Amino acid sequence: MDEPIPGYAFGSKEIPRAEVTPEELAALQLSAGLNPEDREALRRAGDILAGQTHQIVQHWRAGIIASLPHLARHSRSLDDQPLPEYLQRSNRRFEQWIIDTCRRPYDQDWLNYQIEIARRHTSAKKNQTDGVQSTSFVPFRDIIGFVAVMNQTVKPYLGRTGASAEDVERMHQAWCKSLQLQVALWAKLYSDPAAASGQW
Amino acid sequence: MDEPIPGYAFGSKEIPRAEVTPEELAALQLSAGLNPEDREALRRAGDILAGQTHQIVQHWRAGIIASLPHLARHSRSLDDQPLPEYLQRSNRRFEQWIIDTCRRPYDQDWLNYQIEIARRHTSAKKNQTDGVQSTSFVPFRDIIGFVAVMNQTVKPYLGRTGASAEDVERMHQAWCKSLQLQVALWAKLYSDPAAASGQW
Repeated sequence: MDEPIPGYAFGSKEIPRAEVTPEELAALQLSAGLNPEDREALRRAGDILAGQTHQIVQHWRAGIIASLPHLARHSRSLDDQPLPEYLQRSNRRFEQWIIDTCRRPYDQDWLNYQIEIARRHTSAKKNQTDGVQSTSFVPFRDIIGFVAVMNQTVKPYLGRTGASAEDVERMHQAWCKSLQLQVALWAKLYSDPAAASGQW
Repeated sequence: MDEPIPGYAFGSKEIPRAEVTPEELAALQLSAGLNPEDREALRRAGDILAGQTHQIVQHWRAGIIASLPHLARHSRSLDDQPLPEYLQRSNRRFEQWIIDTCRRPYDQDWLNYQIEIARRHTSAKKNQTDGVQSTSFVPFRDIIGFVAVMNQTVKPYLGRTGASAEDVERMHQAWCKSLQLQVALWAKLYSDPAAASGQW
């Protein structure tokens, strides 16, 4: 059995029910153009990415974020020292998020956990899961922005196991739609003054 | 001389200065990975898209949005009747936005107008420019979501004038980064209670 992922609580009763209705989720999938063929393409992407999640998250965190102080600070102490255990724990969850993006049905549990992940990036709950003292809030703007980097950099990983260029393109489109859907859901939490206090 | 675009006020003194600092904009470009090569690629994209903006906006508005009532309503009256002049005026501005995305320097005027466009989608100013009675607010989630559709559907237009597949990919990456940067800037306005009233 795999080692449990620290703080990963998908499907747990401790995760509050998302204040997003199934109708809102359905409409939002239409807005993002995410259709059943995309879900199928994401499942294929999951088979390709499953063995590469560690490498991908290292690419994002150590290869890119670490060199951008305004992003890196969110995994460091308030006096800008490394918090290696915090980084490692959140990296493990980041890796699992890639899998969940590809393989989980986008049902109520998934919706609840989307909002929980967002909550863990805001004043509502950042640092609590890991018991650390780091920044209390990740600006929504930087999350929205960084999605462009994640989308661009994930594409070569989709092509590493011999999928056709056409299928890589198809899987990548589905990935991009899913990330846009997820960021859109995070807007729910980031529009809540208790979580964001008018920060952006 | 081209006919002026109704309500298009880029660079005008009537546009308030954006409450976003140049430092915030610079950091956000790093978050989105938008670099000088991307700006160059966007200029090439502008040369390709400039003659196709009408077709692209028709693709988005008539081809996709019109069939999604939860999106189409934002260009219709409150009792769900067409407002053809409103649609036409905003389509013209939508077309110009494609050009501005590709060709304008991302300077203070551009920043101010980004926030102005966002303002025109929120309770702060929707409908005012065109003197119509339509919905008062476009949810941020639907804008974030629909960016995925715009990104996917713009790509074939980038390939229509003989650019190499590699350069189409390069221009498309730059386009996606720019849109993510722009949506991230809109988060500034959407986090303002006066504009969004906690709506998402």
